[in-house]
Amino acid sequence: MTDLPKIDAARLWSDLMTMGAIGATAGGGSYRPALGDADREARGLFRFWCEEAGLTVTTDAIGNIFARREGSEPALPPVLVGSHLDTQMPGGKFDGVLGVLAGLAVVRALNAGGVATRHPIEIVDWTNEEGARFQPGVMGSAVFAGSLPIEEALSRTDPAGAVLARELARTGQAGSTAVGGRSIHRYLELHIEQGQELERAGDQIAAVSHTSFMCSGYVTVKGENGHTQTTPMSARRNALTAAAKLILAIDEIGAAEEPGGMVSASTIDNWPNNRVNIPHQTDLSFAVVHMEDAGRRRIMERIEAAVATIAAETGLTLCLEFRHFRDGFEFSPDLRQKVLSAARKSGYGARELPTLTAHDALSLHALCPTALIFVPCRDGISHSEKEWCAPEHAAAGAEILLQLAASEAGLEQKPD
Amino acid sequence: MTDLPKIDAARLWSDLMTMGAIGATAGGGSYRPALGDADREARGLFRFWCEEAGLTVTTDAIGNIFARREGSEPALPPVLVGSHLDTQMPGGKFDGVLGVLAGLAVVRALNAGGVATRHPIEIVDWTNEEGARFQPGVMGSAVFAGSLPIEEALSRTDPAGAVLARELARTGQAGSTAVGGRSIHRYLELHIEQGQELERAGDQIAAVSHTSFMCSGYVTVKGENGHTQTTPMSARRNALTAAAKLILAIDEIGAAEEPGGMVSASTIDNWPNNRVNIPHQTDLSFAVVHMEDAGRRRIMERIEAAVATIAAETGLTLCLEFRHFRDGFEFSPDLRQKVLSAARKSGYGARELPTLTAHDALSLHALCPTALIFVPCRDGISHSEKEWCAPEHAAAGAEILLQLAASEAGLEQKPD
Ligand SMILES: [Zn+2]
Ligand SMILES: [Zn+2]
Repeated sequence: MTDLPKIDAARLWSDLMTMGAIGATAGGGSYRPALGDADREARGLFRFWCEEAGLTVTTDAIGNIFARREGSEPALPPVLVGSHLDTQMPGGKFDGVLGVLAGLAVVRALNAGGVATRHPIEIVDWTNEEGARFQPGVMGSAVFAGSLPIEEALSRTDPAGAVLARELARTGQAGSTAVGGRSIHRYLELHIEQGQELERAGDQIAAVSHTSFMCSGYVTVKGENGHTQTTPMSARRNALTAAAKLILAIDEIGAAEEPGGMVSASTIDNWPNNRVNIPHQTDLSFAVVHMEDAGRRRIMERIEAAVATIAAETGLTLCLEFRHFRDGFEFSPDLRQKVLSAARKSGYGARELPTLTAHDALSLHALCPTALIFVPCRDGISHSEKEWCAPEHAAAGAEILLQLAASEAGLEQKPD
Repeated sequence: MTDLPKIDAARLWSDLMTMGAIGATAGGGSYRPALGDADREARGLFRFWCEEAGLTVTTDAIGNIFARREGSEPALPPVLVGSHLDTQMPGGKFDGVLGVLAGLAVVRALNAGGVATRHPIEIVDWTNEEGARFQPGVMGSAVFAGSLPIEEALSRTDPAGAVLARELARTGQAGSTAVGGRSIHRYLELHIEQGQELERAGDQIAAVSHTSFMCSGYVTVKGENGHTQTTPMSARRNALTAAAKLILAIDEIGAAEEPGGMVSASTIDNWPNNRVNIPHQTDLSFAVVHMEDAGRRRIMERIEAAVATIAAETGLTLCLEFRHFRDGFEFSPDLRQKVLSAARKSGYGARELPTLTAHDALSLHALCPTALIFVPCRDGISHSEKEWCAPEHAAAGAEILLQLAASEAGLEQKPD
């Protein structure tokens, strides 16, 4: 194999910091919920950098951006490398961003080295991975992989009532190409770990071996209207107090599953939410994750039991529903092995790790052999302004991504 | 004293049901938050009925509506009778509405009997008593009484961001007359009890003797961002679980004060409120009421202690603030006596009762001798679609209101 050119680590770091300045928060993070004004700026900057690198940029109808470096055999399906530029509200500078900008670093290195590949390489920014503003998350990649109908995605609304299709149009992100429906050779995604295993082990690279069993839970507590300043305490049918009991019960259930699984109630909507009305409806929701199917089932059953207990104790009606089931699976053993051996050859400590949370790679796994590569993030903190990936870890991840992209895209043999 | 004409009880009931049909809810209540479209319709209907009754209708700059029946000595300050037409979200057909429409029944009776009074009588609909949409409540009467600056009221926003001044203008309720600044002879307000004392005693009329000691409490819980699907349960700094503990603690503190006082957390705002982020800020608020100053102080101290305990247990920051203090006071003993004796002369069971919650009468007390009259409401339920006042109780209240209004306005002696 031809010696590959090096990643420009300084440029990658500069790009990460530059992108982080779009929607920058006082706490050192970024605030770029999908298809908001800051996401538009981030996408504009990404497009500019891609065009600067000589790539052909297209956008599909759900706003996924593809920046293509042509292969020597253009008819071959492309190797996709990428992730997402949208963030939590607020999020950090690395979750998603690293995977996209490392893709750019890979292409820049190939360009600098004059390296041609047989398969085209496309860098991708998937729309709305985070699901912070529009739900569900992992949206653009799910539509691309055919697991979410585009009509459903386009009709989603944010909490302020803005419709996704209109926000796509308003921010100029509604592209003209069809979503998916084409052959993909490989999908390679570099991402921060969002856990502490690499840090604890002192390793730099993980090949993600398998995914978790997930679902979402939704609870509606129905109490009864009443005046907070006149209804006797003993006569109150207060939906919020019943919800508070359930929040604490769910937290205990999650704590009992550590470290294989976890769950916390994290959304609450209370009605009518004023100081003179006893809350008469309170909605909770939560994400369930567990590395084992049996663990997911156990969490669900314990929450069902807690709901029944609280309903009996309070006399209120609690409705519980689980939706959005996602079963665990294994990533391509072949690509995992390639990640591990490339990392070790480059002198990095490497290991396999599972992922608890979802990534765009989970969507793409349905379409083609897929590799998800983790690098450490400090203290395992993510979805936070404190999220941090050391420059040398970002560079190490990009280096392995480059090796994998080059080998999977197939190096054009240089004439002797 | 001249024999007074009778209240048209059937018409009063018909008016209550007609008004209740504006913003009617499936559950039998009304949904007319202040200065929304339904409130506008209610106000329009009230103006029409007043003009039909020969009254002169004016609206002041905060939207309070006054419908004046001229006195034989027009320079004398008016007797105000009224309450409010806005409701909770949803509320019932009687809270506030009874006091306004009973005022109309009083004036219609005087008209029908050809009875002239020395003082003018004005029926008033105070803007935004409920505080359901714009806070604080008891707004129009507080501006009228000089206890709330009009600029402050006009600049308030609802949860959707609508500014009160613009909603006043949009719904055509921004009147041209100055707010308050004029002499008021008496203020008489008929209202449902919103408690069960009359019902339990089998009485029909209460003269409200005194008011409670109130304040509002606001708590901000500061947790820390994190990923709900990757952050170990033991490392979570979850603002929502700390808030849940406090909700339950506040409820216990309220229960211990029954029946003299009460408190429940009834508003919650959680950020960022999605399924992949650990809640990092949760705000709670609640209304404290107690018939005694010492009781209010006790509730506040116990909540302070609970906040400190939860902060210590969770390691999170909790900030507690109390605002909007309102001290208890006694209503005019003279008017209370007149209410009781009028009721008993008419054959009703009557008693004095305190009020736990605020009413427009609390604002007007600062301006003139004020009477607040209660009639029973079924099971003490209010701020609820189930709120119910029996027709005979509505009529009894209006009858006493008529007697008081006539005697306070001063009957013009008919020539022999
Ligand atoms: Zn991500
Ligand atoms: Zn009221």
